[in-house]
Amino acid sequence: MNQLVETIQRAVLEALPRPEQAGRSELGQYAGMLREYPRRGGKMLRGRLVILTARAYGDDTAALPAAAAIELFQNWVLIHDDIEDDSEERRGQPALHRLYPMPLALNAGDGLHAVMWRVLVEAGARRKILQEFANLIETTASGQHLDLSWTLEGRFDLSAADYLEMVERKAAYYTGVAPLRLGALSAGTLPHPAFSGAGLELGTAFQIIDDVLNLEGDHDAYGKEIAGDLWEGKRTLILIDYLSKAGAADRKRAEEILRKPRERKTAEEVAWLHERILASGAVRRARRLAEEKAAAALAELENVFAGLPDQEAATAATRLLRALVEREK
Amino acid sequence: MNQLVETIQRAVLEALPRPEQAGRSELGQYAGMLREYPRRGGKMLRGRLVILTARAYGDDTAALPAAAAIELFQNWVLIHDDIEDDSEERRGQPALHRLYPMPLALNAGDGLHAVMWRVLVEAGARRKILQEFANLIETTASGQHLDLSWTLEGRFDLSAADYLEMVERKAAYYTGVAPLRLGALSAGTLPHPAFSGAGLELGTAFQIIDDVLNLEGDHDAYGKEIAGDLWEGKRTLILIDYLSKAGAADRKRAEEILRKPRERKTAEEVAWLHERILASGAVRRARRLAEEKAAAALAELENVFAGLPDQEAATAATRLLRALVEREK
Repeated sequence: MNQLVETIQRAVLEALPRPEQAGRSELGQYAGMLREYPRRGGKMLRGRLVILTARAYGDDTAALPAAAAIELFQNWVLIHDDIEDDSEERRGQPALHRLYPMPLALNAGDGLHAVMWRVLVEAGARRKILQEFANLIETTASGQHLDLSWTLEGRFDLSAADYLEMVERKAAYYTGVAPLRLGALSAGTLPHPAFSGAGLELGTAFQIIDDVLNLEGDHDAYGKEIAGDLWEGKRTLILIDYLSKAGAADRKRAEEILRKPRERKTAEEVAWLHERILASGAVRRARRLAEEKAAAALAELENVFAGLPDQEAATAATRLLRALVEREK
Repeated sequence: MNQLVETIQRAVLEALPRPEQAGRSELGQYAGMLREYPRRGGKMLRGRLVILTARAYGDDTAALPAAAAIELFQNWVLIHDDIEDDSEERRGQPALHRLYPMPLALNAGDGLHAVMWRVLVEAGARRKILQEFANLIETTASGQHLDLSWTLEGRFDLSAADYLEMVERKAAYYTGVAPLRLGALSAGTLPHPAFSGAGLELGTAFQIIDDVLNLEGDHDAYGKEIAGDLWEGKRTLILIDYLSKAGAADRKRAEEILRKPRERKTAEEVAWLHERILASGAVRRARRLAEEKAAAALAELENVFAGLPDQEAATAATRLLRALVEREK
């Protein structure tokens, strides 16, 4: 395993309560629930990006707590997201609320959220880092509200611009912007303004590619249910594009299917919609847009990293930025 | 309105996004959801206790952020609790997830949680105060796990000691211990050890009285559904006591009713159980135990406050401690 991945995962797991030290058995179960998603691993792209960015700036000695904390963020927010979307799988295994009753999973997410702050506080993280975490949670929650409310209210009057605003808030900020800013702040420097502009574009490209993989990825590599976004009725750029170009009858049928909650959709309906979308070229167009966004953002960020003191770390960081948008799974 | 209540509520509301400044309408809705429980008011007992304790120690100039933050804690945790218990009402109005779809309410709770930390961070709260917040959230979540798992798993093999451990974690720490400790820490002093011991006893008495009021309170004053604990199948001290003394047939019927989820219970079943419990004397015994615990804890805490520099504030603080356990609603 990548050395940095191992270091971050160890820091994450060490911050969590241990089932064998929990005392009574119910608290052992609780500790196990907090460890369930972190234990499943993950690529830790955001955590690694924090450390490599700090190192590129010349000082990663204080970066590990922020790296562990952004991974803890990712874990608690996924527990809650999976409940909100009623998702089936996470990292190739059942979502936490499908292993335990939903109320216990919700509560475990809150416990994990507190651990995230504890890691930062115990490390004596400086105020700007704590502010960045408040920013990233508030931004993500506002984007999650957009995403959820569109599905829950059966909204179809959405444009590509609507999707992009939602994704910037919901995913791009914490994926593309926050890790770079946290890296710079951990090194004691002011984050470069390009981190906010180009970082947001790169994070947006990351999410569009995630949407693409959700429809045409390989299940084992992707680790989540294929076409899960259709089952959950997500308003992705791909779906918005497909609907805008579909014939009236197809659009009507597609909207009817999407309006149904997961449990009322049939596999045949989802398969029909999946096939229509793949045939429409909307996935290909979304992938092309993501690639264009990613190329422009990467060029700008590589330019920033080229001016930083530790060029070995800078190269590793930009390689990771590239991996964010070049993943095939 | 009490001057302190007004000051704390203003600080809480000022920390929250404003619907009219949110930009798009969905974000206005989100901002409104964050403000919904804080807007409903509440007695702000914990927040006031933070400020009065700091003042009794001689310096409340830095106490308002911690006071606002503990009220924000109370608000986000209640949003999530109400979902976990599928409660009907909060502060005399529908629970948030009954006004909006559950996923939106869950997400709003997370947004409010982030605002709680932002208030502390923007105020430059010292590390010990941030640690105290991490402690109180972790403690509360572990107690919530006990409470929920007992109900969800249909457990009846519970003793009074089990209940007391659950309540210490779930409610007594953040109600009886944390406000006193936060007050001392805000004044720049080390919290008195009695805050942890006697504070926990007082907080336990507070919760037992809450359980009593749930069964024999006045609906309008209590602000929650009467007998809601029976609908939700809560393992209270009162219930554990009742079951331990009930005849075999009554116990069997009671357990059958309690095992059913809310939507499968009938009003007649709950009314029968409610009546049996009231007739059993278990409520009266619980109230007496709470009064004994409260009296001993209050005596110890009054003794501590008697030695503090600002005696006017000390008197106000101990009056508030008394109000915690003497409320009739």
